[in-house]
Amino acid sequence: MSTQSVANLQSEVSRLRHELQTLKVEDQVPAAGDTITIADYLLERLTQLGVTQLFGVPGDFNLGFLDYVESHSKVEWVGNCNELNAAYAADGYARVKEGSIGALLTTFGVGELSATNGIAGAFSEHVPVLHIAGVPSTSQQKSKPMLHHTLGDGRFDAYYKASQQFTISQASLTDAASAGAEIDRVLTDCVVSARPVYLMLPTDLVHEKIPAKRLRTPLNREPPANDPESEEFVLDEIMKLVGQADEDIIILVDACAGRHNVKAELAELVRKTGFPVYAAPMGKSVVPETYERYGGIYVGSISRPEVREKVENAKLILSIGGLKSDFNTGNFTYHIPVQRTIELHSDHTRIQFAAYHGIGMKHLLPKLTARLQPLHEGARQLVVPKFDAPVPTEDNQIISQAWLWPRVAQFFRSNDVIVTETGTSSFGMLDVPLPDGAVYVSQILWGSIGWTVGSTLGAALAARELGLGRTLLFVGDGSIQLTVQELSTMIRLGVKPIIFLLNNSGYTIERYLHGYNAHYNDISNWRWTSLLSTLGGVEGTNCQSHIVKTKDELDALLKNEAFAKADKIQLVEMIMEKHDAPKGLKVQAELSGKTNKG
Amino acid sequence: MSTQSVANLQSEVSRLRHELQTLKVEDQVPAAGDTITIADYLLERLTQLGVTQLFGVPGDFNLGFLDYVESHSKVEWVGNCNELNAAYAADGYARVKEGSIGALLTTFGVGELSATNGIAGAFSEHVPVLHIAGVPSTSQQKSKPMLHHTLGDGRFDAYYKASQQFTISQASLTDAASAGAEIDRVLTDCVVSARPVYLMLPTDLVHEKIPAKRLRTPLNREPPANDPESEEFVLDEIMKLVGQADEDIIILVDACAGRHNVKAELAELVRKTGFPVYAAPMGKSVVPETYERYGGIYVGSISRPEVREKVENAKLILSIGGLKSDFNTGNFTYHIPVQRTIELHSDHTRIQFAAYHGIGMKHLLPKLTARLQPLHEGARQLVVPKFDAPVPTEDNQIISQAWLWPRVAQFFRSNDVIVTETGTSSFGMLDVPLPDGAVYVSQILWGSIGWTVGSTLGAALAARELGLGRTLLFVGDGSIQLTVQELSTMIRLGVKPIIFLLNNSGYTIERYLHGYNAHYNDISNWRWTSLLSTLGGVEGTNCQSHIVKTKDELDALLKNEAFAKADKIQLVEMIMEKHDAPKGLKVQAELSGKTNKG
Repeated sequence: MSTQSVANLQSEVSRLRHELQTLKVEDQVPAAGDTITIADYLLERLTQLGVTQLFGVPGDFNLGFLDYVESHSKVEWVGNCNELNAAYAADGYARVKEGSIGALLTTFGVGELSATNGIAGAFSEHVPVLHIAGVPSTSQQKSKPMLHHTLGDGRFDAYYKASQQFTISQASLTDAASAGAEIDRVLTDCVVSARPVYLMLPTDLVHEKIPAKRLRTPLNREPPANDPESEEFVLDEIMKLVGQADEDIIILVDACAGRHNVKAELAELVRKTGFPVYAAPMGKSVVPETYERYGGIYVGSISRPEVREKVENAKLILSIGGLKSDFNTGNFTYHIPVQRTIELHSDHTRIQFAAYHGIGMKHLLPKLTARLQPLHEGARQLVVPKFDAPVPTEDNQIISQAWLWPRVAQFFRSNDVIVTETGTSSFGMLDVPLPDGAVYVSQILWGSIGWTVGSTLGAALAARELGLGRTLLFVGDGSIQLTVQELSTMIRLGVKPIIFLLNNSGYTIERYLHGYNAHYNDISNWRWTSLLSTLGGVEGTNCQSHIVKTKDELDALLKNEAFAKADKIQLVEMIMEKHDAPKGLKVQAELSGKTNKG
Repeated sequence: MSTQSVANLQSEVSRLRHELQTLKVEDQVPAAGDTITIADYLLERLTQLGVTQLFGVPGDFNLGFLDYVESHSKVEWVGNCNELNAAYAADGYARVKEGSIGALLTTFGVGELSATNGIAGAFSEHVPVLHIAGVPSTSQQKSKPMLHHTLGDGRFDAYYKASQQFTISQASLTDAASAGAEIDRVLTDCVVSARPVYLMLPTDLVHEKIPAKRLRTPLNREPPANDPESEEFVLDEIMKLVGQADEDIIILVDACAGRHNVKAELAELVRKTGFPVYAAPMGKSVVPETYERYGGIYVGSISRPEVREKVENAKLILSIGGLKSDFNTGNFTYHIPVQRTIELHSDHTRIQFAAYHGIGMKHLLPKLTARLQPLHEGARQLVVPKFDAPVPTEDNQIISQAWLWPRVAQFFRSNDVIVTETGTSSFGMLDVPLPDGAVYVSQILWGSIGWTVGSTLGAALAARELGLGRTLLFVGDGSIQLTVQELSTMIRLGVKPIIFLLNNSGYTIERYLHGYNAHYNDISNWRWTSLLSTLGGVEGTNCQSHIVKTKDELDALLKNEAFAKADKIQLVEMIMEKHDAPKGLKVQAELSGKTNKG
């Protein structure tokens, strides 16, 4: 499918959803004058944002709220095995369900603090997640008794203070009068900034009633409008550089293009201008990798030579949603002078060395597209290298990294959700093109090992709801151990990911960074094929485990239709070499290892 | 064994250890003039404090330091499955290895934040844990590149700021000149305050050399001396109340008596005065529960009637190391007037309504004992109820809560380490006396479910090192799911706890708090008897799983010598009723549920 039709479809889906949501809001909220409990108010707002799953773990300070969740017709409770996994799941859900948010419920202290890493990761990676902490009653927060789950010294605000480091906005509900406005404030910040927010929900307030009429006004979900005069100036400045570039312009797509809800606007830009498109690792699949004028991944000195040549020699680079982290730039080896760069961000624009704060890409992009459209004819003349990844011929049966990724790429189908863990998996997947409509889920900036297991649960639930394809997880034996119990939640909820487990005897990414043969990079080997049945599955009925040790075995499995249709959760243990890694990872690790010493 | 002989032994052990340590320090540290890397300096200081195990997870910002750990002859690296479990393990290690500390190593951001709940729990419960975070190099911290594991906005101090909420002291090493003093400062605070501390260790500094001569001065491990004049005044004030009490005085032992290293001083007080002794839940086993003048657990209105009567009617209560949290006081149902109370704490003393800051119990206790000793004759006349727990006769085969705890109490042996999870296990164990020398590990104030699994790993390693008895864990099917992977570390390291798994179909403590039949308190049922073999064990060789469904089956297992000798890691799945709970839990939950609504 061409980028044009995909873009049109995406745009239409977005329009229809918005229309539907507005209708639903008007249809279903209580009449003015009615009241609603604060618990239900929050759940209605979540419903309006498209949230259907609430992740988390019960605890005595959130059980009262959970009664409302259990009675709610639209929001389902996903009881996770622990809070970190739940936070990861909320993150994965938000990534796949674009335009919506992830929602997480924990309990005071012990629960919420276990989620810290997951929330900080959502902050780092621009993922909108609401973290609701069930907290002691408003009167307890004033009298400060030495409750369980407290620090024992009366500091009831310590967790709130910690959360300020990792969320864009926080609210501690203190009374019914302000509760509705406070909930709306943090939810709006969550959606508009695409960042996590934190909400303290006291045990007594969940039952309190507030006027329902606020619910009739849908939450604002759009970034603020650009100042027209500044915006016009910015467009003029961009066009001056465009004029000097002799149409030798490329588009470089990065993380925030996917995270800040501009896919449709970007697709229009791409289609109407015809400029060659490349993606940074964190922008992979934001523009479909099957698009004929897409050239692949640019990651500084780690890029394929033909991509590097095209990107670094272009006269002008239009960077969309850039996030120039070490692992997203080949350890800061971009060779693109600022003089030749225009950066569009969610809340500002950079032209060469000048920053224009408040000029965000969501509203700028359509106007820029209109200005650039006339260059279409010339832009189409620019040659774009073909992004493909043929399966190499190797004269052995070892499941090598070089062979694995191109081979599994052939297994992928349109609309599959593909999740890769930090390390060999995320580096390996960069080298192969994903099919049309595929959703790529990875965490390259934050890079917390174990994240994908929770994230896959959320991604799979979102995919099921949206009618997407299969959910495929690629994870190493070291990483999966951090969060493994969440497979049991997948089994319980009947989602059916295929888990490709790279059994390469430990932390291979770390071996390349440091300690090639060190014992601290070893882990214990588990009996992986009995994992699903131990965690509540029934082998052959609602789960299936496989082990493959050779290329032929994996090849046969991938060709097996029963396997490929993914009608139950499956785990594929792939025996691989301890010291094998994708080329990109080896180079990145070498560069990164040097920096650490400096 | 009487409390006298135990106390004498404990005191002797403490004295010998200190002597040994001083000798070792003088023996082994390099000569003045020599230099040592900062990494080795830190490891030497840990060795001086008796640390033999470093818990944690490798990550690229701590791999350089790990090379030094791997080469170190005294400190062993325990690679955990994840950081929360590692923090719990460091906590459990510190609890069992009294006088030493727990040590934890994580990596910047992703690693350290996953440990937050574990560190906050150590703060809440007065457990000394050093949290070392491997962080970017000092030059990177100045230039602030967008590294992986950062929040992407240049805030390299965000994790440090969060840690300030949950640690008593923090250090961010910035140069070699101050590194030794900074390490010593946080370690001293850790030991003296019995609280967690946080140390940022940059990748470049680990290799830098500093003078070794600081190591010849052992760290101060004692709380500051009391001001003699104030102390004398305090003793006089105490003796006035004692004089009015007609020798009707009881000693109430609580958490901080165990955590602030005053066991020997307390044992002297108990032995030389002969006053009746009771314990709060968090003080259980600090004074041996076999001691003939020990009457059992006082927990407000949840106490046994005979204990309640004796404690609440005593004319004077000497409270040692009190920590009056909700779950430690029967939801604040102490009926002891302040007028009749003297409280000894680690850093202050309270006499009726007056607080004397800076008068700590470590130095006060011996002097108080000397003053009170003459009351011995009269004190011995006070009647102490017998603390026992006969196994009830029930005419069915259900493994009931009422039957279970007295029955397993008969299985315990001297010097066993007994770990109970928050919930049914910790409430159930309160009702039964533990044998002589038993070490009781529980987390009643913080109460984070899943904590015991990590904690058991640390406790078992400490027990093995100290030559204690078996390590026995009691945990529910809900709680173990949060942290289950750490069983694999136990298998790998060859520690041999017996895990008594209460399979009662979900979060029973929460059912009593709220949602008796709610779905959010259900969990998925796992195939528990295949868990150990899935996580790397070989059934019958280095692990053994059991399932018991009746009283007779459990009884037979407990009588089986092969089982009881605990020569491999074992898991006992005990099938129990969903809605059964120890009586104390039911009452506590009812009281606590009411408060939450308030």
